[in-house]
This record gives sequence, structure tokens and C-alpha cells, in this order.
Amino acid sequence: MRQSGKILVAQGGGPTAVINQSLVGVVLEARRFRDIQRVYGARHGVRGIVDEDFVDLTQETSHNLEQVADTPASALGSTRDKPDLAYCHEIFKVLQAHEIGHFFYIGGNDSADTVRIVSEEARKAAYPLRSIHIPKTIDNDLVGNDHTPGFPSAARFVAQAFAGANLDNAALPGVYVAVVMGRHAGFLTAASALGKKFPDDGPHLIYVPERTFVLDRFLADVKATYERFGRCVIAVSEGVHDEQGAPIAARLAGDLERDAHGNLQLSGSGALADLLCEEIRSRLKIKRVRGDTFGYLQRSFIGCVSDVDQREAREVGEKAVQYAMWGECDGSVAIRRTGFYSVDYELVPLDTVAGRTRMMDDAFISASGCDVTDAFRLWLRPLLGSGMPDAYRLRPNAVAKVLNR
Amino acid sequence: MRQSGKILVAQGGGPTAVINQSLVGVVLEARRFRDIQRVYGARHGVRGIVDEDFVDLTQETSHNLEQVADTPASALGSTRDKPDLAYCHEIFKVLQAHEIGHFFYIGGNDSADTVRIVSEEARKAAYPLRSIHIPKTIDNDLVGNDHTPGFPSAARFVAQAFAGANLDNAALPGVYVAVVMGRHAGFLTAASALGKKFPDDGPHLIYVPERTFVLDRFLADVKATYERFGRCVIAVSEGVHDEQGAPIAARLAGDLERDAHGNLQLSGSGALADLLCEEIRSRLKIKRVRGDTFGYLQRSFIGCVSDVDQREAREVGEKAVQYAMWGECDGSVAIRRTGFYSVDYELVPLDTVAGRTRMMDDAFISASGCDVTDAFRLWLRPLLGSGMPDAYRLRPNAVAKVLNR
Repeated sequence: MRQSGKILVAQGGGPTAVINQSLVGVVLEARRFRDIQRVYGARHGVRGIVDEDFVDLTQETSHNLEQVADTPASALGSTRDKPDLAYCHEIFKVLQAHEIGHFFYIGGNDSADTVRIVSEEARKAAYPLRSIHIPKTIDNDLVGNDHTPGFPSAARFVAQAFAGANLDNAALPGVYVAVVMGRHAGFLTAASALGKKFPDDGPHLIYVPERTFVLDRFLADVKATYERFGRCVIAVSEGVHDEQGAPIAARLAGDLERDAHGNLQLSGSGALADLLCEEIRSRLKIKRVRGDTFGYLQRSFIGCVSDVDQREAREVGEKAVQYAMWGECDGSVAIRRTGFYSVDYELVPLDTVAGRTRMMDDAFISASGCDVTDAFRLWLRPLLGSGMPDAYRLRPNAVAKVLNR
Repeated sequence: MRQSGKILVAQGGGPTAVINQSLVGVVLEARRFRDIQRVYGARHGVRGIVDEDFVDLTQETSHNLEQVADTPASALGSTRDKPDLAYCHEIFKVLQAHEIGHFFYIGGNDSADTVRIVSEEARKAAYPLRSIHIPKTIDNDLVGNDHTPGFPSAARFVAQAFAGANLDNAALPGVYVAVVMGRHAGFLTAASALGKKFPDDGPHLIYVPERTFVLDRFLADVKATYERFGRCVIAVSEGVHDEQGAPIAARLAGDLERDAHGNLQLSGSGALADLLCEEIRSRLKIKRVRGDTFGYLQRSFIGCVSDVDQREAREVGEKAVQYAMWGECDGSVAIRRTGFYSVDYELVPLDTVAGRTRMMDDAFISASGCDVTDAFRLWLRPLLGSGMPDAYRLRPNAVAKVLNR
């Protein structure tokens, strides 16, 4: 069956700025293998497999594929479906009917779990399927990876956003709170630190879900920073939680949406930022307090991408095809750092990645719990890629006062 | 007094991506005039004048000035202060004490009003001061200008944001609402239309404050779009209001902040987006509804700038110095469009601009009231500058179904 020459690729979970690089990596690399006659793409992830909603990517031009690779979001469409056993049986029926021998699924830890289930069910059903998971997630929360494709570009967006927000806040001083995506892992929120250039620049305070968020301590931190600099720029992860593990956002809204995976819906609402601003305003008596929620911009904004991320996202797609064609087992392609800065790829067992969540190392979080360390800055910097915009200041050549009132 | 050779420049109101281009335009152009010995910058606008908080920009290097020009937000700092008569007397005392002969204030219609008051008070006091207002505002709401520096870069951010949000929404379909800045003028919200490429792309609906926002009609529009495309991307101005002129956002929060100018504080809160999402969710029974508020990102994001905007912002600063040195009256530098695409500058009376608000022409808004016209697209496109990122799609080469369930 694996000699049928048909492969299927799909994209799952939240889109990223470079997920189409991985898709195009699969398609173009597959064209180099004479055994592969057809490359199908399933529309909207596993949902498209069950619905037999396929496009023939073999008929695409290389030129258009390259242009799609440079376009953010999932060109094939995505899904939040997480297949159970019955769902997988439906997937098999379709794979068998279309004589698919290789299945590539680009996604995060939920998608890796989907690949794991599909792979196991194929084995149980004695269906000769090679299943490869290709990593992507802006959350950077895949176990076994130095980092994941999609994260560097989102991190670059966050760093650039904070670099600009810091300048704006310096021009019109006050308190600025921005809420960044990241349910359990604080990598993306921590990336805000790379927007800082001068010692008194913001973000002055960074709160990640790896540390308990204590409202009173937060307010004390803000007060101290405001008194020191006359302003305060704060990065807060959407996933910050209290001592009991309850999301701070949940204090506001009792009926937050949960998706099919049981994940609490924290994105798509400005509630957390507004709540924190109100606390600062009312309890610290600071007048100018502003809050932003970066929302979908941080994963979908067109025109803010790391060239390093683009290259690696392309390579994980290419390597996935090589592992599938030359290798003898299913797995997940993982990124390993080999130098400063270079990477290599390896195929790791699916259960290394599937359904598990990586969080920030303690070495990346400062002892204060509200900043990152130099180790984190050093780890992240090369991922942001070339051409990062830079901020400059006027030098303080003060003019002597005449009236001196 | 005007021969003293000292000029003073300041920046007021909300920062933009290119306001420092205008500042540097003033400083570098002033260096060409041998009569000018000193260029002072007031820190934080008129507040810095009253406080005698000046930096000597004559001592800056050209190299650093060029780097500051490329940095967003007000390098001198800004203020929301609006001087009254007593405030102006304080300004005069300082200007006289420092023998300032020329005053340049970079800002929006509130700043133009400040220049107007200062200019009139100088005349009444027989103090020989040349006062020039240099335009900037992301709202594009200055009367007498084709457009204002700062708007094109913010418009570019909004267009790129919607181009990306549309792709994200196509990948994971649902309803997406994004709230864009613009208190009275809808230009920036309307710029979302430039993020659209294919006929079925979003934004599908655009609501500007120039038209009354009727919640029931809004919901009917969303329902019709969702039924047609299976998804809906919506751009809403923060300043949308009901039949009585009351902001829709005010339905939520009764105690919204007002600044010193009496302006209602609509920015820095995610309330409007959250309210609209909740209406769509509860009344249209659509499950996946997400809202973003672009907030400060749209005016402060570093690394998203229009090169046309940069050039024009530099030029209004240069021209301001020329008008001041060679002209015989105070005024505001205005941009006139002379070709597709080219502009020229002229000095218009301060009361043309001061405290007045330009809104979108009827010719820019479609008859439906929830879209823009081609006239608007044609007007805006050249302002966005070169190198706009573009979105590509896979071609729909469908694979025949086998099971065909």
C-alpha cells in the first residue's frame, strides 16, 4: 500500500505566520521522490479527511506554492477537531479508499495526539500507513523541541509590539498592560523582553503562567515601578492563574467557552486586560492606565515574520517527507539546537510530544518571578531573525533654565 | 527678536510612527539657515515649555537624528495639555526669557488649537513670534489636508492586520470583530478594506462613525454575511454611536474617562469588541465569535511604516521651517494631492485646522453604510507605500470523492 504513491497532508490547530512553509516543504520535497505520484491536501485538517475534502497539490505550480509559503495562516484550512476512535475509523476508511500511504499532519500537541491515535489505529487495523507529525505552535509548548516553528515569528511580533508600546508609553507616561497569548507556557509573553533596549525601557514587569499570579504582589510591583520610572509597561500572559490554579481571567467571566479539547477559551476577549487596568486605577490611584490584548494579531499579522522561522518551518516539512520515505517508523519531527545559531532535525516518538505541554525552564525566569533572565534573551534572540527594527533616543543635552521657577 | 536665532520645536497629542520624521525635518532644515543658531526641543509638548524643560537639538549628530527619525512615537515626549490663557502667559514668559523667535508644534487639531491660541496671545502681547503648526494624526481628521502624516502608517498596520485576520478566519471559520481607533472619523477603520484581495475576503463589513450604528441592522448584516460565506470579518470604529449620538461603547461603561480636552476615553479598553461579540453569540447563536481591539498597536507598533508617510512627514517639517523663515504669517502646513501619486505643501490659516474635525466624504462610504467605495480605495492605496505584503491561495484542484458519503 505504501507503494501507491499517494501522500496526504493537512494542517491542524491555530494558524501561524509560517505554517504554509511546512506545507510547501512537504509538497516540494515529495516531488523529488519518483515513487510519489500524488500529493493531496485535506481541507480543514482531519475534518477534511473524514469529508473526503481533498485538493490535488500535485497540480499546483511551484511559483504559486512559493507565494503561498510566504502567506500566513493555514492555506488548507484548519480544525479544532480531536479524533476519537470512531472518528479515526472514518479517517481509515477514507485513507484506504484513496490508497493513501503517508499522512503528514502539521500542528501542535493536540495535532500530535491526533497523529498518535491515527498511527495506533492504523497499526491495530494492520493498515500500512506512515504517519508523521510536523510541529507548529506559537505557544512553543512542544516537549522535545528547542523551539517550534511559528513561535519565532509570533515572538518577533510581540517584541516589536512592546518596543513600540514602550516608546508610546515613554511619550505619554502612565501604566500600560498588554495581554499576550499562551495558555500554559509563558514563552510568547516572555518574548516581550526582547522589545527592551535601554535599562529604563519597558516591559518593566513580565508575568508568565509558570508562576502563580498574586494580585497584591502584582499591584506592589506596579507601584514600585511607577514610582521609580514615572511609568510602567507590563506584559501578562492570558494564562496567568491564582494560588488555586484558577485563571485570573475567570474571576471576571464565569461562562468562558471551552473548545472540543476541553481547553478554556481565554483568547478573543479583552476582559483580563480591562480587569487588571481597573485594579491599578482604583487601588493605586494612577490616572492614566491603558490595556491592550494582542489577540489574533500576534499569530495572524501579515508582514511580521522571522526569516529564521521561515527557513526552519520549510525544513521540518522537507525532513518529514525524508523520514517518511527513508525511515521505518512514525514520529514527530523535532528541532534540536546545535550551535549559536544552527539547528538540526530528528524524528522523535509521537508520545514524546502528543498531548504534553512544555513550560519555561526555571533558568529562563528571574528570581523575582516578574522578569526573564539573560539565558532566555540569549536563547530567543537568534530566532527573531534578521532586520529587527531598532529604537533610538535623542541625547539629553539639557538647556539651562533661565526663569528657573 | 525673530533675529535671535533660536527656534523651539515640540510634539503634542498621540504619537505616530513618523512624528519623529517631522521633528528631524525641522532640525535638519533649520541647520541650513545661518540665522538659526539654536534649535531647542521642549520635552512633553507645551508642558515642557512652561517647565523650561528643553533639550538642545543643535548638539545632536545628524546620524542619531536620522535614527530617531526612523523610530516611532514622540522622541521629545508628548502631552495632552491644552493651554488656556493663563497657561499661554506662562508659555510667553518662557519664550521671552529664552529669546525664542520661532515656535513649531507638531500635532493634531488640538495641537493646532494650541498653536492658534499661542499665536493670538503673542500678537496681543506684541511679542514677535512666528508659530507654525505641523500636522500629524493617525485619525486623518485635519480639515484642509488630503491626508495627515501618521495616518498612512497606521492605515498600513490596519490593512496588514485585517489581511492576516482574514486568512486566520478563513482557516478557522467564525465571526471576527476588530475595533479600530477613530473617535469621530472613520478613515482608519475604513483602511481595513485595503487588507482585502479576493472577492470573498474580509473585512466583509466596515462600520465608521460617519454613519449611525444600529445594533439590529448590524446583527442582520452579520447574519447575512455568515450565511453567505460561512464566516464574517468585521471592522468597527471605536467611535460608532447610536441614533442619539451616544457611543455604543458607553452602553457598557458608565464611567468612561475623559481627558483634559473633554474627549471621551474610548481607547485602552476591550469593552466594545467584547460587547459586540456577546451580542452576536447570544442573538445569532453563532458559536465561534472572536473579538480584538487593536488598541495602541495601531499607532505604536515598530516595524510597520509606509515609506510614503515617512517622506511626507519629513517634508512637512522641512516646509514648516521654510515657511517660518521666508514667510510672513503663522499657519499650519497642509498636504495637497497634486497627482497619482504626488503631493505639494501649503501654509493654511491656523483656524482652518484648529479644533475642527474632518470626517469621511460621503463618496468614500458605500450606500449600504457598511463598506467603502472604490474612490476610497483609490485614494488610500498610494499612501500605504511600497512593499505591502500580499496573500496567496492554493488553487482549488478538487480530488474526486471515492466513498462519497
